[in-house]
Amino acid sequence: MQALRFLGFDVFGTVVDWRSSVARDLATFLRRHGLGHLDPAAVGDEWRDLYQPSMETIRRGDRAWVRLAILNRESLAVVLQRHGLDPAGIPEQELADLNRTWERLDPWPDSVPGLTRLKTRFAIGTISNGNVGLMTWLAKYAGLPWDVIAGAELTRTYKPQPETYLGAAELLGLRPDECALVAAHNDDLRAAQACGFKTVFIPRPTEHGPGQTKDLRADGAWDAVADNLVDLARQLGC
Amino acid sequence: MQALRFLGFDVFGTVVDWRSSVARDLATFLRRHGLGHLDPAAVGDEWRDLYQPSMETIRRGDRAWVRLAILNRESLAVVLQRHGLDPAGIPEQELADLNRTWERLDPWPDSVPGLTRLKTRFAIGTISNGNVGLMTWLAKYAGLPWDVIAGAELTRTYKPQPETYLGAAELLGLRPDECALVAAHNDDLRAAQACGFKTVFIPRPTEHGPGQTKDLRADGAWDAVADNLVDLARQLGC
Repeated sequence: MQALRFLGFDVFGTVVDWRSSVARDLATFLRRHGLGHLDPAAVGDEWRDLYQPSMETIRRGDRAWVRLAILNRESLAVVLQRHGLDPAGIPEQELADLNRTWERLDPWPDSVPGLTRLKTRFAIGTISNGNVGLMTWLAKYAGLPWDVIAGAELTRTYKPQPETYLGAAELLGLRPDECALVAAHNDDLRAAQACGFKTVFIPRPTEHGPGQTKDLRADGAWDAVADNLVDLARQLGC
Repeated sequence: MQALRFLGFDVFGTVVDWRSSVARDLATFLRRHGLGHLDPAAVGDEWRDLYQPSMETIRRGDRAWVRLAILNRESLAVVLQRHGLDPAGIPEQELADLNRTWERLDPWPDSVPGLTRLKTRFAIGTISNGNVGLMTWLAKYAGLPWDVIAGAELTRTYKPQPETYLGAAELLGLRPDECALVAAHNDDLRAAQACGFKTVFIPRPTEHGPGQTKDLRADGAWDAVADNLVDLARQLGC
């Protein structure tokens, strides 16, 4: 880890707690539309379950690249219809605002203090599937002190396609081994490692709620494993 | 200015004092190569004089887009040759480091305090011809608290091409009139205004040294004129 100059972060799950935040906005929306009996966290999980399939059509090349905000909006329409709500009957402004819940996700308690310390020694930035605008407004909301917003939009790919990681390194004029991916997801780290990135696993055992079964622990030969971002700052001497 | 959400900044000249900083690095380099009799500021001006012509071939479509760091490096070779130094005889690492002087430019005294205040109310970012990596490392060096690095590289254009400004707005999901360009250069502001951006002029009367004749004052109908970035923060209620 001696040569390390850039820490690129997965964001959804690793830096912010999307599940509680999305459920909070959905709760208000569902009550307003007579669906107060539904569990907003479960509806949020349905929305999130469409995340990977929506990107997969683009990864496979079946669809031209579009921003994650557009995919999220399409997935929202699917979920609402599933519960008997016709999106066409809801004011455009209200749907757009609900879709922007992904710009209002609370950070995990260690995220802002950890990133602030890591930033003193490394360049820190996003390597997320979230588009640049979404990531920028999310950072404003959550106080995430990124040096640079990189990731999927800049290469018009979606993780785990190698261009997403390699494009971030290239953008900063760095070799892959001068960069690390920090993520709570072993699959993401595997893809970054295959590109020559260093890898840091941070467990987020409640990202998917109390019944989470995946990514409870590191399952690869990662360069570092830290309890959280403050612990990572300590390990890296920040 | 009521609807304003994003302040995009010209960087070279507006936020950082490139001339003094480049001269400082050049002074050391020139002495090392037996050219200590040259005025490093004048050599820096020669380097900078090649800035617009180097981008112009790309704006005209005569050359495929390349990053500013590459153009700067080519221009440096021209200037050194003009003074009898063969770039091929200088270690690659030394030239690369000298070219990275553009990542080590000092901010004007008001820049960091002004941006820090502006950031509390607006998203702030770069709309510069500098590439994303250069801008990121410069921000690390100078302590510039950008929310997002936008600008030329993301649209593979160079200012004053309209795509550079419009691409920054589009990236953030904003209408042009929700964005302002902040610049010390009237021409830059004219191009941004033609795209529907709001405009803020900040005079930097010594950007080009004591004999500066251009951009000493606002010469267009700009939405705001401020003495410096701290004054702008005050004017915008930050």
